[in-house]
Amino acid sequence: MRRTSPGRPRHVVSTSAASPRDQVLDAAAELFVTRGFAATSTREIAEKVGIQQASLYYHFAGKDEILAELLQRSVRPTMDNVAKIEALVPPDTDATALYLLALIDIRTLAEASHNVGILYGQSDVADSEIYAEFHHARGQLVESYGRFGLRAASRDLASDIDTRELGEMLTHSVEVVTTLRQVGLAVTPKRANRIAAAALRMCEVPQATISIAASAAGDLLAGLVTIDQTAGALAAQ
Amino acid sequence: MRRTSPGRPRHVVSTSAASPRDQVLDAAAELFVTRGFAATSTREIAEKVGIQQASLYYHFAGKDEILAELLQRSVRPTMDNVAKIEALVPPDTDATALYLLALIDIRTLAEASHNVGILYGQSDVADSEIYAEFHHARGQLVESYGRFGLRAASRDLASDIDTRELGEMLTHSVEVVTTLRQVGLAVTPKRANRIAAAALRMCEVPQATISIAASAAGDLLAGLVTIDQTAGALAAQ
Repeated sequence: MRRTSPGRPRHVVSTSAASPRDQVLDAAAELFVTRGFAATSTREIAEKVGIQQASLYYHFAGKDEILAELLQRSVRPTMDNVAKIEALVPPDTDATALYLLALIDIRTLAEASHNVGILYGQSDVADSEIYAEFHHARGQLVESYGRFGLRAASRDLASDIDTRELGEMLTHSVEVVTTLRQVGLAVTPKRANRIAAAALRMCEVPQATISIAASAAGDLLAGLVTIDQTAGALAAQ
Repeated sequence: MRRTSPGRPRHVVSTSAASPRDQVLDAAAELFVTRGFAATSTREIAEKVGIQQASLYYHFAGKDEILAELLQRSVRPTMDNVAKIEALVPPDTDATALYLLALIDIRTLAEASHNVGILYGQSDVADSEIYAEFHHARGQLVESYGRFGLRAASRDLASDIDTRELGEMLTHSVEVVTTLRQVGLAVTPKRANRIAAAALRMCEVPQATISIAASAAGDLLAGLVTIDQTAGALAAQ
């Protein structure tokens, strides 16, 4: 809900909320989620932003392109961190890597504009070309979950399941964030940790290891957030 | 995929597949899932069944009513069994009750016509009156999961989470069935058991208890299936 309060000085407004492109995305997300994708027109999106329909088309070819961008934004921040996680987390602490991936993904979904994660299903029946990049990114996310999950998994489970299936199960389990938001349960740090811990339990990680991973991942996440904010501040200059 | 093979004698065709009402539901489910709900017209549904549009309206007021019925059918069989589970499962075996509820729900979702579970989100933005019964049934399912889950949960978790939140998390976790079907992974008994076990792990049930629950719930499910089939055969006469 990136709303700017009336009296807020322009230069501290988040750059992402301020750009016309992002205003279109935010208005579209709200309309898609509350009224439905099919029932929303580009005219209504433009009206909500307070721009001409022609100006909207300057930024996006149509509403499919807007939805594709929204969906990508609900995956990309997590994927951008996968390499960082692999670099940051010491070897032989696979449970920590999975916990950290889950925490970052939970944060991404919790911050996604108007809970757009609930629109994932819309892209399955729509023009596949426009959504190709989103489907590719989500495929990579599933693969990362599967890879991290298999490394953290009990020997029994690891010998019995493949990357794809475990990845789909873990990705789905973290997407409970969209359900909680939908029913009005805020994604508090306690809930975020409960969801991440549940992902590790799915991999049959013992409780003692989960506790260590939770603590280590929490510390690493604080470091990553600082890096993100610094990078964001630099990009905004 | 209730398709009848060409040479199959009429009297052994499942009654549910044979009724015109069910043929409409099946055709609609396929179109809604493959093309999208908004992009499908009642005319196309009627054409697919091979009936007049007017005949379709004899059974349903419109496509919202068809979707509402499809969604209810993806929840109702599970809810019909909740009372049976509470009667069948001995006291103090709460983990078994939760495991059995999960197995029945997994079966319901695995058998739902054309994986209609992926259309759940469609009802949130549509006419609320028509979907009221489905939302009520799904609310009861969430409540049952929460109640069974709290009884099975570790003391730590049970003191820290309420029925609603745990219910939403467990319901969502079992709905991974729709994701697996969507990506082409068949819901084998092994996968069904893995999903049910994951639900118990989410409640911090120890592995030894999960193993006992899996075995007991498997036996009870076989009994329930027999009861269902007997009831179905009697109803069909």
